[in-house]
Amino acid sequence: MRQLAKTNKKNYENYVVTRIWHRVNNLDIKFVTQQYISRPDGYALTDMYFPQLNLHVEIDEPHHKKQIQQDVLREQDIINVTNHQFIRVDIDLIKGIEYINEQIESIVNKISELVDLLGDRFIPWDLDKELSPQTYIQRGYIHLKDNVAFNRIADACNCFGYNYQGFQRGGTLHPMESNTLIWFPKLFPNGEWDNNISTDECTITERNVNAEKAKNHIQEHIESGIHRRIIFAKVKGPLGDIMYRFKGVFELDLLSSTSYLVWRKVSDEVKTYNPQK
Amino acid sequence: MRQLAKTNKKNYENYVVTRIWHRVNNLDIKFVTQQYISRPDGYALTDMYFPQLNLHVEIDEPHHKKQIQQDVLREQDIINVTNHQFIRVDIDLIKGIEYINEQIESIVNKISELVDLLGDRFIPWDLDKELSPQTYIQRGYIHLKDNVAFNRIADACNCFGYNYQGFQRGGTLHPMESNTLIWFPKLFPNGEWDNNISTDECTITERNVNAEKAKNHIQEHIESGIHRRIIFAKVKGPLGDIMYRFKGVFELDLLSSTSYLVWRKVSDEVKTYNPQK
Repeated sequence: MRQLAKTNKKNYENYVVTRIWHRVNNLDIKFVTQQYISRPDGYALTDMYFPQLNLHVEIDEPHHKKQIQQDVLREQDIINVTNHQFIRVDIDLIKGIEYINEQIESIVNKISELVDLLGDRFIPWDLDKELSPQTYIQRGYIHLKDNVAFNRIADACNCFGYNYQGFQRGGTLHPMESNTLIWFPKLFPNGEWDNNISTDECTITERNVNAEKAKNHIQEHIESGIHRRIIFAKVKGPLGDIMYRFKGVFELDLLSSTSYLVWRKVSDEVKTYNPQK
Repeated sequence: MRQLAKTNKKNYENYVVTRIWHRVNNLDIKFVTQQYISRPDGYALTDMYFPQLNLHVEIDEPHHKKQIQQDVLREQDIINVTNHQFIRVDIDLIKGIEYINEQIESIVNKISELVDLLGDRFIPWDLDKELSPQTYIQRGYIHLKDNVAFNRIADACNCFGYNYQGFQRGGTLHPMESNTLIWFPKLFPNGEWDNNISTDECTITERNVNAEKAKNHIQEHIESGIHRRIIFAKVKGPLGDIMYRFKGVFELDLLSSTSYLVWRKVSDEVKTYNPQK
């Protein structure tokens, strides 16, 4: 529901994405809308992504024909990077709803074929497993490309050696790695804090709107020596639900941190640990 | 698409309505979202309505349990008035997506059964016919309960004896009925005009924001003797499309028209005419 709701101010996209999903009608198949993908020259978002099948669906809205050529270039980039498959849906209102529905039906059939082709290698979507720290402890790492997000701060902490039942603070020291904070920031203006993540999601700025407090905050952080952060951003989903989404490992950029702290991404992946006694 | 788009800021409603529609997968079946229905004590909106089948679907959103009892009362009202059938979908997030999907599948089956039951009496949805003046000329009338809306002002005019190819003005005299204007108002603030329709859609106020112009406007209208209006409101759909929707026949309320004109609905139905030579 959360994934469908993300499409819901874009009417044609909402029609196509809901129709694909409801016609596929298989809760074992995972999909993500507005999937973030790295490109050689920046990043891109695709409309609907099936991670088990390496399949993307892109919707060409009417009255955006000019943009499509650019999109096709973008697609070529992404294919080069990921070896993923792309299918485009042409929303041509002159050709009518039947034309759009036929394209969707062929995508639904394609999805069935891909699942059949995978056979035993198809791993059914398990949302409970996806939300459990144990999954990532067993895997040994958390990687950006897996879109990892937890319902609770405690679940994120428990991937790194903690054994919390509940935890409410905005950050905690890593019990296994020195000078590292596990941080749960709001990356948008919030009270006296105005934190921000860049569109390429590689730089985070941490700013106190009060100049005096900002100065002290910078001084304290530089002196503390804790210059590495594993970041789970607090995000509000379209259904009003709060999640903590992994954004990578960042390090303090000392040279740039003059009137606010600047954190630069140093890794897309972080090691996980069993709970410590 | 327009009907689905109307649900798209209501995430659970969007999920249920799109799923019912895409699983029914039959373009011969008409549906309307947010259907306006008269009640003994006012009016109501239902979430999804299948006019060929006299079937309504109501979606009970989570966290609105208090409201449901009131809704059930409302439903009873509507059943009494219309002899329509109602099915409720319970969005219980604890019971999970399978529980919601099962309810939807049973509605999809119910719809099939109702179509089969109608047999030859089932008239497939024909949107072109619905948008053609000829349909209403043959029928002899336009009625509110049929949700009539046209793409063009000319189409509405042509239901009353005109034979326009195109027409762009905001109103025209009825060629067959005296002292009657066919009016295409914007029923929301627009430039120097601030027109409004009441929530029960029985009263329209027509106001010029300039006091001097307003006074002259009232005087002119009272003196003209044209005190009856067939109203097609200009409405913008969720896909950005403009339509002219029938709102009934209204008459000038002379006593109430002091600082602005007040129009009261006198009929839900209006007679149609063949084009005149």
